[in-house]
Amino acid sequence: MAVYTEVSDEDLTGFLTQYDLGDVTSFKGIAEGVENSNFLLRTTRGTYILTLYEKRVRAEDLPYFLGLMHHLSDKGFDCPLPVAGKDGESLRNLCGRPAVIVTFLDGLSPRRIQPEHCRLLGDALARMHVASEGFALHRDNDLSLTGWRPLFERSRARAHEVRPGLAEDLAREIEALERDWPQGLPCGVIHADLFPDNVFFLGPRLSGFIDFYFACNDFYAYDLAVCLNAWCFEPDNAFNVTKARLLLNSYRRVRPLEQAELEALPILARGASVRFLLTRLYDWLHHPEGALVRPKDPLEYRDKLRFHQGVRGPGAYGLD
Amino acid sequence: MAVYTEVSDEDLTGFLTQYDLGDVTSFKGIAEGVENSNFLLRTTRGTYILTLYEKRVRAEDLPYFLGLMHHLSDKGFDCPLPVAGKDGESLRNLCGRPAVIVTFLDGLSPRRIQPEHCRLLGDALARMHVASEGFALHRDNDLSLTGWRPLFERSRARAHEVRPGLAEDLAREIEALERDWPQGLPCGVIHADLFPDNVFFLGPRLSGFIDFYFACNDFYAYDLAVCLNAWCFEPDNAFNVTKARLLLNSYRRVRPLEQAELEALPILARGASVRFLLTRLYDWLHHPEGALVRPKDPLEYRDKLRFHQGVRGPGAYGLD
Repeated sequence: MAVYTEVSDEDLTGFLTQYDLGDVTSFKGIAEGVENSNFLLRTTRGTYILTLYEKRVRAEDLPYFLGLMHHLSDKGFDCPLPVAGKDGESLRNLCGRPAVIVTFLDGLSPRRIQPEHCRLLGDALARMHVASEGFALHRDNDLSLTGWRPLFERSRARAHEVRPGLAEDLAREIEALERDWPQGLPCGVIHADLFPDNVFFLGPRLSGFIDFYFACNDFYAYDLAVCLNAWCFEPDNAFNVTKARLLLNSYRRVRPLEQAELEALPILARGASVRFLLTRLYDWLHHPEGALVRPKDPLEYRDKLRFHQGVRGPGAYGLD
Repeated sequence: MAVYTEVSDEDLTGFLTQYDLGDVTSFKGIAEGVENSNFLLRTTRGTYILTLYEKRVRAEDLPYFLGLMHHLSDKGFDCPLPVAGKDGESLRNLCGRPAVIVTFLDGLSPRRIQPEHCRLLGDALARMHVASEGFALHRDNDLSLTGWRPLFERSRARAHEVRPGLAEDLAREIEALERDWPQGLPCGVIHADLFPDNVFFLGPRLSGFIDFYFACNDFYAYDLAVCLNAWCFEPDNAFNVTKARLLLNSYRRVRPLEQAELEALPILARGASVRFLLTRLYDWLHHPEGALVRPKDPLEYRDKLRFHQGVRGPGAYGLD
């Protein structure tokens, strides 16, 4: 939960003169998003989200994220849509930060994942991958293979504070990933951070994805690996093969998976575990005293990593 | 900013079956209210706030607060209105906490106070006092005269950690207040916590008050004293007599102040300073490691107290 930047009424009123959104009727900080400040903005024209981009999101990446939301929306994939000002620009500045107004997406993030959520997620993820085809911009995944070692080095010396032996485990695993990471799998735009917080449901349907601020170009199957971790483990970290089967099978009904993608799932899932283990480890060791956001437990992802290390093939994920 | 209790989709859906509010379309924690968990709830019928009452609010006081909102609203004073369930009850339980849905009040809290805000506030505060007449319930102000000494004793031994001499200053002041506190002033329902966070404006008008969870029966003029402190000092703690004059004069155009009320203003303002100095001091010394809410600076209220200690009569507040 997070509102890092205070926006005064004068700041807001001045900012809104650049838009054609009518008069503001309400403005409330919302407890959503760990990286940015988000506000619910209601005007005489409708309801919107105003986002101020804080740390971690680089201003030069914003045209990629905003362009992607436009592209997906044009292709009929539901996500927030950046609202352009009178000058046609949607990316501007507020309180010294890059700021964007997006349309409000109805729906609720699930707190307790049901198998049906996973089935709907697989279908929507494949539709997103298909819809993203033809998006002209490119952004490397800086939190994939080449990013892990430098990120690890920033926490390595203190990793034992979280769990003895964690540094050694990670060093060994990163070495293995560098050796065995797949090449040449089908690539395109991936969300790369598709946790339940970022997926909205409305009654029996999935109403859309939000928070595209880690989106990048990478293996499509890597997005599935992130989802296997974020959606298919129970709170006690037991793997739920039923959820995985529903996720993967509903995905491949929309976008068939190649044999190479299926076979790469275990190593991709290990990589996806290391990615979140490393960022959580860093945040755990470096979060400032008195921070308003509680860091997430890195060890959850060490347990997930161990599960995938023991997997011998895609059958473990419920596939025939 | 605060969401202390996580509400799962199942909890929410189950809870809403007790109401006639249609289907939920959105549910977001909002960064508002320090004492309770607040959620913005959108349904096919409208927009609401769901509040879960956490620490400090006693369940047995809730009928007073909710009844007051009903009473004020019936009398035409704008404030959130508790929404009754199918059984006619508005106070129920969710996730082990007392919970209430209220209507959504449009408006924005001012971040930078202008003189015009104070003029509108005085008028609205007097209208609230007049509208509250006839409200049948009674609740003592447990954060007034009789509450200060016990509250002080809980922080006294460590007050020097905040500022050397603070304990001695407070002991002397509480003694003076116990000796000189007025008696027999006009009494009724007061808001008792009317900070800018709790007052909404919409364009050129004041759209209503929120957060009645410190409301109680006490001197009407004490509410003015709280407002003098919360609205009429600049960020550098200089007193702004223009704002005070506008606040008090617009108040007394609606509800005339008796001579005894005017003369009591300096001591009431000292008492109101001590009240917030003491609760802030307690929170400052006792806030848990890693808490999600930053405690507010107690010394701001020591400075305000000093100003009022130097005041010789209501003329210092801009009155003739």
